[in-house]
Amino acid sequence: MSPTRRPPIVGRFQPEEVALATRNSGMPLEALRYDVTPVGLHYLLIHFDIPEGDAASWTLELGGLLERPARLSLAQIRALPQKTLRVTLECAGNGRAQVSPRYPSMPWIEEGASTAEWTGTPLAGVLEAAGLRAQATHLVFSGTDRGIDRGIEHEYARSLVLDEAMRDEVLLVHAMNGQPLLPQHGAPLRLIVPGWYGMASVKGLAKSEAVDRPFEGVQQALSYHFRREPGEAGVPCTHMRVNALMIPPGIPDFYKRSRLVEAGAQRLRGRAWSGGGTPVAKVEVCVNGDWRAAVLEPAAASPWAWRGWHFDWQAEPGEHELACRATDAAGAVQPLAPVWDIAGFGNNAVQRVAVTVR
Amino acid sequence: MSPTRRPPIVGRFQPEEVALATRNSGMPLEALRYDVTPVGLHYLLIHFDIPEGDAASWTLELGGLLERPARLSLAQIRALPQKTLRVTLECAGNGRAQVSPRYPSMPWIEEGASTAEWTGTPLAGVLEAAGLRAQATHLVFSGTDRGIDRGIEHEYARSLVLDEAMRDEVLLVHAMNGQPLLPQHGAPLRLIVPGWYGMASVKGLAKSEAVDRPFEGVQQALSYHFRREPGEAGVPCTHMRVNALMIPPGIPDFYKRSRLVEAGAQRLRGRAWSGGGTPVAKVEVCVNGDWRAAVLEPAAASPWAWRGWHFDWQAEPGEHELACRATDAAGAVQPLAPVWDIAGFGNNAVQRVAVTVR
Repeated sequence: MSPTRRPPIVGRFQPEEVALATRNSGMPLEALRYDVTPVGLHYLLIHFDIPEGDAASWTLELGGLLERPARLSLAQIRALPQKTLRVTLECAGNGRAQVSPRYPSMPWIEEGASTAEWTGTPLAGVLEAAGLRAQATHLVFSGTDRGIDRGIEHEYARSLVLDEAMRDEVLLVHAMNGQPLLPQHGAPLRLIVPGWYGMASVKGLAKSEAVDRPFEGVQQALSYHFRREPGEAGVPCTHMRVNALMIPPGIPDFYKRSRLVEAGAQRLRGRAWSGGGTPVAKVEVCVNGDWRAAVLEPAAASPWAWRGWHFDWQAEPGEHELACRATDAAGAVQPLAPVWDIAGFGNNAVQRVAVTVR
Repeated sequence: MSPTRRPPIVGRFQPEEVALATRNSGMPLEALRYDVTPVGLHYLLIHFDIPEGDAASWTLELGGLLERPARLSLAQIRALPQKTLRVTLECAGNGRAQVSPRYPSMPWIEEGASTAEWTGTPLAGVLEAAGLRAQATHLVFSGTDRGIDRGIEHEYARSLVLDEAMRDEVLLVHAMNGQPLLPQHGAPLRLIVPGWYGMASVKGLAKSEAVDRPFEGVQQALSYHFRREPGEAGVPCTHMRVNALMIPPGIPDFYKRSRLVEAGAQRLRGRAWSGGGTPVAKVEVCVNGDWRAAVLEPAAASPWAWRGWHFDWQAEPGEHELACRATDAAGAVQPLAPVWDIAGFGNNAVQRVAVTVR
């Protein structure tokens, strides 16, 4: 079956986009005040329905090109060496609603990013115990949430090349912020791939299969590619691009979300991150077109988590535009405007916040 | 300052509506499978920003027409007699997006309802200890979340007439589903008013004031009224109207959320509730225009919580429309189409789910 294509949208939003925005969840930007996003405020992008995963009967099937294929219970996974990592995840489609024409999907504005503490066991140890055969080049990870995307019925599945899958920080996790995984976060077991956009961290992980060729599943080969034109082979979405967000200062209007700020000394605060473990090197804040360095707060608790920053601003009465921009240690810097992508992936254009100071 | 009015919207959705849909959260309807909605799946409607409530320093001020005005710490409230109640809450604006022209606000489709177990102390005990004066007729409850709505700056605040405030089931709660309240649910202390639409259950409760006249605050006198035309005095939103929702059967299309169902025996499942403690008397399911009785599951664990129901359906290949409709013990029944309201409040029209059976 050949995949279907959804025609792009210009201007106001379709009911389907609103339905997705209502069932998925952004992190309200004031929650950037928390170094670890509290339970229930972490962003959520759920491709199909949230499955009903039963922890007591759950097993992870380890199959494919292995010497010792296995089926592990949750208790067996919990009995393996455990590790807790603080990880910032961002949806590859974050910022999509700022791109025009707009791809018909979850209309993230900029709130599809959060940080949690994930606990589990390194995938590498589990695969080493199962004995990868020499021909194995890729691992395919499958969840249990089933549905239709681009006309093709499938269970959500993604792959990693062997070297990526075997990295120390790639975990099979059963807990988030010290609690058992919640259904919407992939209970009872999920993959966490730090440094990557969120689509790699497969939820409700039921199967890991070692294979000898690239995986051709919908969510791997068709979706999650950067493409400038339909039909292009494209470039796969992998590591998160450098990004920064600020807490909108002052108080909001309920409907417009415009901001009213008191004149005087204001500390602007936010978080910045990049992908692939690359540290943030610099954050700048722009007030009415004038870019200045922000203060980077102490290094993040983990190389995979965002880093706090602040900027002391002397707010003068009137209308102002604030913006923030991060640069990472590899020299990548956020663009001032979205970089064109047909599906709205990887939009890390600087956040702009209009404020009225009184 | 006279309130401003937001002009109604027809057709596709405004960016402001999408921003609200992304920062607020609906309960994905598959979560109707849970009698108690898991943490992080409970719907959220946050008027302004989520405040940063510090449990250690938090106090509830009891003021106004009292013999013994007081300021209670969270520890003092926890030391009072405790009660846990299972309560279904629904946003008064649930279903707004189905009404045209549409009021510019959170564009709920039908997912603004959930159930939690709330733990705290009855408000009545606290007020009795403080000694209500004879002149007191209303209680005004204020949160700390501040912002602008209809051009008026205010902290979110609501009132109850004395008799309602003194009802046994009205609680000052500090825990939800056995955990300390999360920031987005009103940490560290909130009001819960069972049987009422959610706007009555003030979050981040900082002050309770006994007064001798109706409260004229924005969220009491201006918003949350049923009105057919602008400028009408209107009727206040109070108890939830009877309502029922089903879990959409089968599997979804990612974007369209259309449903694909296997032919054969299918058990349709859902929940039904009404307001003011009125029990649900009947649920019916409609398949292609033919209404039949559903099976009501054992009575809810609390008179304030929804009740499960199911309906066994022999699904035949083809296109079908499913619907469900509840009737409560007072004889109130859901309408087949939305009842007109300018702000889209109280829309309890029957849910309709289009499915393709294969």
